[in-house]
Amino acid sequence: MTVQPDDTRANAGRIVISVDAMGGDAGPTAVVAGLADSASINPDIGFILHGPEDELRRLVARKKILEGRVDIRHAKDVVTMEDKPSHIMRNGKGTSMWSTLDSVKKGEAAGAVSCGNTGALMALSMLRLRKLPGVNRPAIGVLWPSRNPQGFNVMLDVGADVRADARDLLQYALMGASYARNGLELARPRVGLLNVGTEEHKGHAELKEAHRLITDHADAANFEFVGFVEGSDIPGSVADVIVTDGFTGNVAIKTGEGTASLISDLLREAFKYSPLSRLASVLAYTSLQRLKKRIDPRRVNGGVFLGLNGTVVKSHGGADATGVSAAIKLAFTLAQSGFAQRLAARVASTGTLSQDDSQSAQADDKDNK
Amino acid sequence: MTVQPDDTRANAGRIVISVDAMGGDAGPTAVVAGLADSASINPDIGFILHGPEDELRRLVARKKILEGRVDIRHAKDVVTMEDKPSHIMRNGKGTSMWSTLDSVKKGEAAGAVSCGNTGALMALSMLRLRKLPGVNRPAIGVLWPSRNPQGFNVMLDVGADVRADARDLLQYALMGASYARNGLELARPRVGLLNVGTEEHKGHAELKEAHRLITDHADAANFEFVGFVEGSDIPGSVADVIVTDGFTGNVAIKTGEGTASLISDLLREAFKYSPLSRLASVLAYTSLQRLKKRIDPRRVNGGVFLGLNGTVVKSHGGADATGVSAAIKLAFTLAQSGFAQRLAARVASTGTLSQDDSQSAQADDKDNK
Repeated sequence: MTVQPDDTRANAGRIVISVDAMGGDAGPTAVVAGLADSASINPDIGFILHGPEDELRRLVARKKILEGRVDIRHAKDVVTMEDKPSHIMRNGKGTSMWSTLDSVKKGEAAGAVSCGNTGALMALSMLRLRKLPGVNRPAIGVLWPSRNPQGFNVMLDVGADVRADARDLLQYALMGASYARNGLELARPRVGLLNVGTEEHKGHAELKEAHRLITDHADAANFEFVGFVEGSDIPGSVADVIVTDGFTGNVAIKTGEGTASLISDLLREAFKYSPLSRLASVLAYTSLQRLKKRIDPRRVNGGVFLGLNGTVVKSHGGADATGVSAAIKLAFTLAQSGFAQRLAARVASTGTLSQDDSQSAQADDKDNK
Repeated sequence: MTVQPDDTRANAGRIVISVDAMGGDAGPTAVVAGLADSASINPDIGFILHGPEDELRRLVARKKILEGRVDIRHAKDVVTMEDKPSHIMRNGKGTSMWSTLDSVKKGEAAGAVSCGNTGALMALSMLRLRKLPGVNRPAIGVLWPSRNPQGFNVMLDVGADVRADARDLLQYALMGASYARNGLELARPRVGLLNVGTEEHKGHAELKEAHRLITDHADAANFEFVGFVEGSDIPGSVADVIVTDGFTGNVAIKTGEGTASLISDLLREAFKYSPLSRLASVLAYTSLQRLKKRIDPRRVNGGVFLGLNGTVVKSHGGADATGVSAAIKLAFTLAQSGFAQRLAARVASTGTLSQDDSQSAQADDKDNK
């Protein structure tokens, strides 16, 4: 590891974000371009950048705005998209991803950003940062374009774990509400539990149990529980936070993304159809750009890992400079609001709810009734 | 029940569809308008219509095109959207829904269409028509706009049952492939199993088992198994049939619908933004209409109940005349192709795969290897 006291001193007073330069589809060039975008917008961000030192030094030197704001840490290995999480947990020590998380663990950075392999990043994050006391399964939360005034809803889990029992879903509700308070500035977020219908008799037994648990904890945790919601409510306006297991959540957001992408392609085709429609597309250009910006997935790039001792933002693997910059901004915003500390306090205040401890969990339920 | 020999005779030579006039949000007026739309396009359809006789007679009399083509059957009760399926199974005998299915059971109609309560319709369908031998859980299959040349993919189950084990998923693959052959005229459909990633190590144990079972049966059942697919592939081009459990499928299609509806509203807003964009929207009118038609959910209105002795099409509860007419067209197309008989033959040919009979199922697997 290369320690660069000059750069670090230069970043004094700045909020430092630890960034993994490797593992994304577009390589370190896109990541460094994203750093430059962020640095030019926000004078209060500094960076620790992880990857092959010589290459990164060259890339950073080309961006004037990054002068004195990037501390480069050498890491020779890269986690690829094909690596199995279990393999990386045993052999990941020399990777840029490991090094990126290490800076958060050591307190040198207020948050981490990586475009790499999601499964490996979650596995290493759990290994290096550890789960918050009381959290059984960490979750990945994303912002999703919605009809709500804030423009986005929080959705979790979108793929940290394919399973979630009733107590995990309660934790997700607590963590999602905390994220909405700090990331979307909603004082009292409305939380919905994803199901196949809004009637209370619908769905798995596990969901009915989760419904009961979340109802019991809503007041103490300062959120409003709106009960069961449906897939159509993910981009809707009845809830600000959508809680579900990582299997369903992952399928749902990918279906939404696929549908949006199909419509956008068909729209482009429609505008190419005739000379008149081509003229229309020229006239509508600014309106369509505005729409595109409103639902541009790059603008809300970044899944936040919730339930760990530290903030980790997973950027989309295919992120370009704009996407990387959005993920950095998210990590910065959460660091600035002291999100990690607030979330830890929130989870701790609802008592121990680990699966192995249903006795104390039941006691906790009673206290909240 | 009112028997009307005159009308029935008039429908000789026509394919008769049994239609529930009640239970939809828009009431019998929209249903009768849908009948009229269908009748004017297709001279080969006749109808048996179920509901309050006097009201239906008045509505039908207003549509010249329906003269001599509608056999009205009196049913005084209606299944509401709030009725629990279990209640309807015990007390549904006087309802228009019951009567609608009865016409299929008795062989008077080649298929049934209802806009009513999905859960009640599935429960009554299972009670009246019975499951096909070898089918454990019937499924609801829908057509979903996609990038494939046929314009649509088949997706199932979208909500007949919130659970599905590996053998149910195999049945869904067989039934979905059969539907794609008869509904979309694909000789050798490509079937994908929905998961959170395409790698074979991903997902629940149940999914890995289903992957193995479907691989073993693909050749004999004359479809191509493309393995695991993701949410983004539901509107994609890597598979023609997407297989999943009813919980995940229901959330996925509702998320897709919600996303499409949000984008369409934002698009409308974008075009209202300035005088220039309003002008653009006028010029782009026909192109946008073409796009709208391509992804209009009313055009593919109708979930088909698969795995029963008879064809039942569930129309969207909020369907208007266009939606009802699309659902009727679907029932007609499937009836014409002898779908119910072909599906029964297909399921029978893969042997008994009930959950209680894993011994014989394993033997069946070996035979197919």
